[in-house]
This record gives sequence, C-alpha cells and structure tokens, in this order.
Amino acid sequence: VGLDVGGTTVKAGLVARDGTVLLSRARPTPPAGRLEEIERTIAELLRELDDHDGAGTVGAGLPGVVDHARGVVRHSPNVEAFTGWEARDRLSDIARRPVVVDNDANCAAVAEGWVGAAAGVDDFLMVTLGTGVGGGVVLGGHLWHGEAGRAGELGHVTVDPQGAPCGCGSRGCLETVASATGIARMARECGREGDAESLARAARSGDPAAARLFERAGSALGIAVAAWLDVMDVHTVVVGGGMAAALDLMEPALRDEIALRAYALHPDDAIVRRAAVTPTPGVVGAARLAMLEESRLLARRQDGPGSTG
Amino acid sequence: VGLDVGGTTVKAGLVARDGTVLLSRARPTPPAGRLEEIERTIAELLRELDDHDGAGTVGAGLPGVVDHARGVVRHSPNVEAFTGWEARDRLSDIARRPVVVDNDANCAAVAEGWVGAAAGVDDFLMVTLGTGVGGGVVLGGHLWHGEAGRAGELGHVTVDPQGAPCGCGSRGCLETVASATGIARMARECGREGDAESLARAARSGDPAAARLFERAGSALGIAVAAWLDVMDVHTVVVGGGMAAALDLMEPALRDEIALRAYALHPDDAIVRRAAVTPTPGVVGAARLAMLEESRLLARRQDGPGSTG
Repeated sequence: VGLDVGGTTVKAGLVARDGTVLLSRARPTPPAGRLEEIERTIAELLRELDDHDGAGTVGAGLPGVVDHARGVVRHSPNVEAFTGWEARDRLSDIARRPVVVDNDANCAAVAEGWVGAAAGVDDFLMVTLGTGVGGGVVLGGHLWHGEAGRAGELGHVTVDPQGAPCGCGSRGCLETVASATGIARMARECGREGDAESLARAARSGDPAAARLFERAGSALGIAVAAWLDVMDVHTVVVGGGMAAALDLMEPALRDEIALRAYALHPDDAIVRRAAVTPTPGVVGAARLAMLEESRLLARRQDGPGSTG
Repeated sequence: VGLDVGGTTVKAGLVARDGTVLLSRARPTPPAGRLEEIERTIAELLRELDDHDGAGTVGAGLPGVVDHARGVVRHSPNVEAFTGWEARDRLSDIARRPVVVDNDANCAAVAEGWVGAAAGVDDFLMVTLGTGVGGGVVLGGHLWHGEAGRAGELGHVTVDPQGAPCGCGSRGCLETVASATGIARMARECGREGDAESLARAARSGDPAAARLFERAGSALGIAVAAWLDVMDVHTVVVGGGMAAALDLMEPALRDEIALRAYALHPDDAIVRRAAVTPTPGVVGAARLAMLEESRLLARRQDGPGSTG
C-alpha cells in the first residue's frame, strides 16, 4: 500500500509487485490542514483499500523535509500543520502495521527508478516541477537522504542571485521560475493572466510571450541541472510533476543552458527524460519503499531470535 | 609515493602510513608543456625518492578531468598538453611499478579525509580555490567520481548567469569570482593592480575596496555551497588551495549566503573548515590512493590463483 499525502489531495493505492496500481483512491486534503482530520482521512482511505488487501507495510510520501529514519516531518512550508508531525508512529497506530515515510519527491524518484524513466539506472536526479519544485537523488540504486533528509531540494538552488523573492526567504531560487507558481508570477509581471496550463496551451498555439515564459523556466532548470552535472557528474535527470507536461516547451532552452554551462561534458551525454510513472508516482514509489522495508524486516526475522538485526 | 603534477610545479613525496611526509621534492613543470619532458621530470623525481624507498605503488594527482578507471586525462584546459595523456600506463612504464591517477583536487579531498580537516567525516565536499577552482566529492568515505570523472567541478557551477565570461566558454562560473584569477580580474575592473595575495594584504590593512573583492568571492562560494547543501545535504565543506589563506576575508559573506540560500538548514549546521593538510595535500592524497590500491591488490592476491579477483 502506498500513500501520497499532499497539500490538496491525499492519494492511496494498492500496488502490485510489478508496479501496477491495482486500486487507487483519492480524497481532498482537509482544508483546515488539521492533523487529526488528515489522519482520519488517511484512516478512511486505508480501510477502503483494506477491504481488498489488509496486510503488509504501508509507505507514505509527505511534502517537505522528511526525516525518514525518525519518521518525522521536519519542515513543511506549504502545509504548515505537517511541521513536526510524527507521521510514521501516528500512521502506524492508525493502520496497525509498519509504516515507512519519505519525502514525496523522493517517492517519485523511487517510482521512476523502479518502473519508470530511470528503470535500471543506478544513479540519477529526479526533479518534480509542480506548484513548487522538489527532487530526489538516487545513487547506487538507493535514495540519498543526506544528513537531515534535505537532499534533493533542487527547488531552492539559486539560479539568479538577484532574482525574485522565494517563499523560503531567499531569492532567485529555481522554484521562483520553473514551477507553476513561477510561470504564473512571470506572466503577471508581463501583464498576462492565466495559470501554467493555459499559458502552455497559449505557447503551443503560437503565442510568443507565453512561449518565452517556458523558455525562461527551461533556462533556469538548465542552470540548476548543469550545476548538478558539474558537481556529481551523474548524467540522467528525470523531470516529473505537473509541469513536466510542458517539458517540450522548456527543453530547447534547458539543453542550451546545459551545453553552455556543464563543464567538459558533451551535451549529448546529458540524458533528460520525462517521468513515466503516471498518474500517481508518489503512491507507486511509497509502495515500493514499503516493499523494500518488508524485505528488510523479513531478512532480519530470518536471522533468528539470537540476532541483533 | 605521491605525485602532484601541476601546471607550474611537479611535486613528489614519500608519505608514511600515518600521513607524514618523510621526504619531498619539487621541480618546475617544463614550460613547453611537452609530455615527454614532463615525463622525464617525473622520472627524475621518482629516482631521487627511490634512493630512499624504491618499491610500492605510485599515486599521481593530475589537473583536469581524469578518468581514474582508465588512467587517462580526458580534458585539461589549463595544461593543454595533458588532454588525452594516458598517464597511468606511461607513468607505470617510467616507474616500473603500479600507478594510480586521479584529479588533483580529488587527491586533496582524500588527504583531508585521511589526516586533515575532514578526518573521520564520511561525507564532505572539498573545494580548492587556487588559480582556478576545483573540488572533490567524498561520500561514504570514498571519492565519488561520477560517470566520467567530472565530479567535484564546483568551479564551473554558475553563480551569476549574466556574470563574467569563463575560460570554459560559459559565464558567471564560480571560478570567475572565487579564484586568484577572479580576484585579480575584479580588481582590474575597479582600476586596481595586484594579485590575490597583495590584495588580501591590502584588505587586512583596512582597504575597503580590496576587502570588497574577497566578500564578492565569499558570496559566490556561498551561492555554490548552498546549492550543494540543498541537493546533497552533506554539511561538511573543506576549503583548500592557495586562496584558502584568505578564507577569513571571505567567510562572513560566505556564511551570510548560506544562511540566506540553504533551504531549511540552520546555518550553524553547515560546517565550513579550512583545509589542514599543508603544504602538499595533492602529494599526500595521491600517496593515500596508492596505499589503498596496494591493499586492494594484496587482498586480490590473497584470494589465491583460482580467484577471478
């Protein structure tokens, strides 16, 4: 079972061992953002899935900085109520079974590495372009969490030191440009209305000002990806999230910046792929993390009672 | 035995198992930059050290992008003659013993992780601020090379998309600001003369314009380090190279940028340390790589003749 607990929707799904989503459910996240109500919603979703399954570990993808080892949300700027949420223990009480939690973009990365655009690739960077920008780092086939679960926060990499203020307190973050919010903001600054989706449609029907917004987003993403390529020299980058539907509009500028800025790398060696796990990569990845955790628990049990694990 | 083959000097040293440099020699790199002359210089240096030792693997740090697995310099913009140099095999012929090669900044990182500022730290970023800016990534106690040996090229991370042109063809690279060359360039643009060393002295004697140059370098380094912290969430950063002597002049601005730009990280959690292995970190690190290679060869031999290694 995989859960994707977002700011607007809570999704849950039963995922088979081959990555197929057998059954999925979604509910709006309670608008008050109160934890008890969110937990109640999750409990209801799990009961609906339990009619069909009923056992096994649950994996949950959560927004913000997640300390996966302690099972706690350390920092959640978009859903303030989540900050400090001891999600693993609370959900484990609710579900009456083991729970693993991780950042939602990390879950998407796991899904892509399992059955998606990076299947069979040991090392890659996942970027999720949505309302904000998230990401996940996979090295040697495993999620790289960093020292405090912050790894993969590509959205707050500076792409223009003098750029627009970001919700995080900094300025010129990738997220201020290459997100749905960033596109809408830049549009407003040019006296345009509309959200990223309508602007993408306008760009596709030949509106040059709208097209320019996606070029700017692509350039910003290219600057951040080039920095990744220079420091980590890991060539595969998977782009997911709602804005990935407009990757074609961003890609020429993205590739130009990589060609200009990635040091001593032939531009063809950078492999930028659109995410392939839809529509619920977070659910699929969270379920995969649950399966991996089950295997670990099983292996530990088979070591016998004398083992210290 | 460790070698550090630079654009201006070739250094060689006998290094003990505890990291002490027992004996060291240096020669100017032949100015023509012709490989045969450089190889001859290396041969002479090795003979001088051989009078004292005479056995064991040789490690060599080389400038540019080094494919350590194949033992070849893939790209060396500053010492053009090195590009394509099959350094491992050539040096192995010269020294008549096994040779391992790696990038010079990677060697410095190994030295710092072994007996320097990051001793006992499993994960850290090394940045070398010299004529240019290099770096090395250590994860899980091992050098992270990336897919083509390019990992750690922090010098070409964009810190200002509209910034000064860089020798690499891009613009606004960290190296254009936070290097000895960058400091001298910025000084010239303000109508000042002098190299990084004299400008550092001026800054220390209260010259505000000179101080401002190092602040700009510190800011640029802070932007690049904050990106690293966001994406990898590895908190220890070791700053080496000749310019590290001016780290105190850069550090306030460096810390301000980290505080502003590193997402959801308490600024105190970022650990910026000055490199501690002097004066020949490249030699010490290269020697360490040679020791590690020897251990590997020994372990393989002990597996017996039937083993495939």
